[in-house]
Amino acid sequence: MDTMHLFIYSNLSAAARAHLLRQLPSDTTVTFRTDLLPAEQRPALATADVLLGNPPPGWLTPPPPHLQFWQIDSAGIDQYQGVALPCPVANMGDFFAWPCAETMVAGLLGLLRYVPELAVLQAEKRWVGAPLRPRLGLLRDKRVIILGRGTIGKAVAQQLTGFGCAVQFLARTDPQAQLHSKPELQAALPTADIVVNCLPGSAKGFFSRELIAALPPGALYASVGRGTTTDEPALIEALQAGHLGGAVLDVTAQEPLPVDNQLWSLPRVLLTQHSGGGQPGEDEGKVDVLLRNLRHLRQHEALENQVQLARGY
Amino acid sequence: MDTMHLFIYSNLSAAARAHLLRQLPSDTTVTFRTDLLPAEQRPALATADVLLGNPPPGWLTPPPPHLQFWQIDSAGIDQYQGVALPCPVANMGDFFAWPCAETMVAGLLGLLRYVPELAVLQAEKRWVGAPLRPRLGLLRDKRVIILGRGTIGKAVAQQLTGFGCAVQFLARTDPQAQLHSKPELQAALPTADIVVNCLPGSAKGFFSRELIAALPPGALYASVGRGTTTDEPALIEALQAGHLGGAVLDVTAQEPLPVDNQLWSLPRVLLTQHSGGGQPGEDEGKVDVLLRNLRHLRQHEALENQVQLARGY
Repeated sequence: MDTMHLFIYSNLSAAARAHLLRQLPSDTTVTFRTDLLPAEQRPALATADVLLGNPPPGWLTPPPPHLQFWQIDSAGIDQYQGVALPCPVANMGDFFAWPCAETMVAGLLGLLRYVPELAVLQAEKRWVGAPLRPRLGLLRDKRVIILGRGTIGKAVAQQLTGFGCAVQFLARTDPQAQLHSKPELQAALPTADIVVNCLPGSAKGFFSRELIAALPPGALYASVGRGTTTDEPALIEALQAGHLGGAVLDVTAQEPLPVDNQLWSLPRVLLTQHSGGGQPGEDEGKVDVLLRNLRHLRQHEALENQVQLARGY
Repeated sequence: MDTMHLFIYSNLSAAARAHLLRQLPSDTTVTFRTDLLPAEQRPALATADVLLGNPPPGWLTPPPPHLQFWQIDSAGIDQYQGVALPCPVANMGDFFAWPCAETMVAGLLGLLRYVPELAVLQAEKRWVGAPLRPRLGLLRDKRVIILGRGTIGKAVAQQLTGFGCAVQFLARTDPQAQLHSKPELQAALPTADIVVNCLPGSAKGFFSRELIAALPPGALYASVGRGTTTDEPALIEALQAGHLGGAVLDVTAQEPLPVDNQLWSLPRVLLTQHSGGGQPGEDEGKVDVLLRNLRHLRQHEALENQVQLARGY
């Protein structure tokens, strides 16, 4: 590679943009999409050697003629399953895993200790006090099933360490998982208190009506991979019927969630609005991942977090 | 003790009341305060051998003539410092410790992951999404100082295990604490990210303007013992000035919090309305503590959680 031209599709913070410019090799030029008029943006991709960010899939068909590397700035890549590129592609690997796990645990512990309800009472300046107490639950010693033994699931399990929870993982091939198939999962669900769904988008509809029904009354559900991995109508029915005791949803099938969706107003549902991966210095962190992979590329080393778009991971 | 007469001041749930009646020895009679007219309640205490619950301090001066044992149904006893009884008195010991700790961790993790704000957005059906993310913090690796090495503080530390936090305790005499005096605490505060105050009511005003000022900008504060252990006007100023990054308050100097108190509407403050000790089967648990101590009393064994009212613990 001689002079390299970067096209930054991502909407970087000013701090992250400065962070990138400070560290860019001198033989590199860069175009920020957000500096261009809308009509100029897609055409500018034609000159790019390297792309950072997640443009609409259509922008990549046909492939930009000079593209040598694409750094996706998310963990999920299922929206690009139909894109075929001749160059290597990487995603953000485990960059969002720990923050996503903190949002899951914050939401579950929050549901148990009534944090969302308390926040709404506070906004109304309403003191309820002692009558709240009989409704509160505890995370202590809960039986938790985590769907997927990737980096988010492992981080959730680690964060639960101090609460004495009994954690089981579902993962098809991972020998460290306790559950390896849908029948094994279904047999375990009746004694679970909490299910945390960390499955990727390729597991569409996995958490089905049948599995939801297998949970005992009052169980909690949390979901952080893709909204499409949950049978959402079945989830809503189970919440309405009081079969489930609550849900923490970082993801929904449609985002932003339409204003008439019942999930907005069901009690004991917490919507975290796909903020789970949020973390201090998030944009600078994305730039760091890009810069590391650029070095690997120049030195003909293996890339971090290389993915196969067609496979979905 | 021959026939024993119990007076239940506590407002027990129907389930806990049934739980008590099922297990009561046959030579015991019981009066529930809540079955009496207001004018009958205090006089009925005159016939009690055993009292469960927290009546107004004035009801115990002079001491009820037959009282042989008083089971206080809270952990805090500072409101009874002026009461002098010739019989043994016990409090609830560590019964509320773990739940209180879960509320502290839920609140802190909730502040970091924006759970209260998300709950209020949800009540308004407002999707913000990605713009929330730069504001989110992480509990991971935070430096935490816990004031008091009692059962709540220890439970908080245990619950933080999986988050990699560096925990220090302040306790005057406990050899397992790292900080033993106000000067040692003051020296440690500038490098703390979070302070959790688990001090009893006897430490009135301990967390002072000076100590709050010693925290670095953006630090979080959580308080669960007694509201009076915090200099509340100084806390409010530090929150208004943005010096503190937020606060989780299970307790306030005045409860219920008056509607014109600024804590209601300060952003990044979560009021948990003294619900921290709430837990499944709370009232049944209180009954169990009473019944265990009654057995100890009859068998002339040491009581669980006996306290000295004048000492305050």
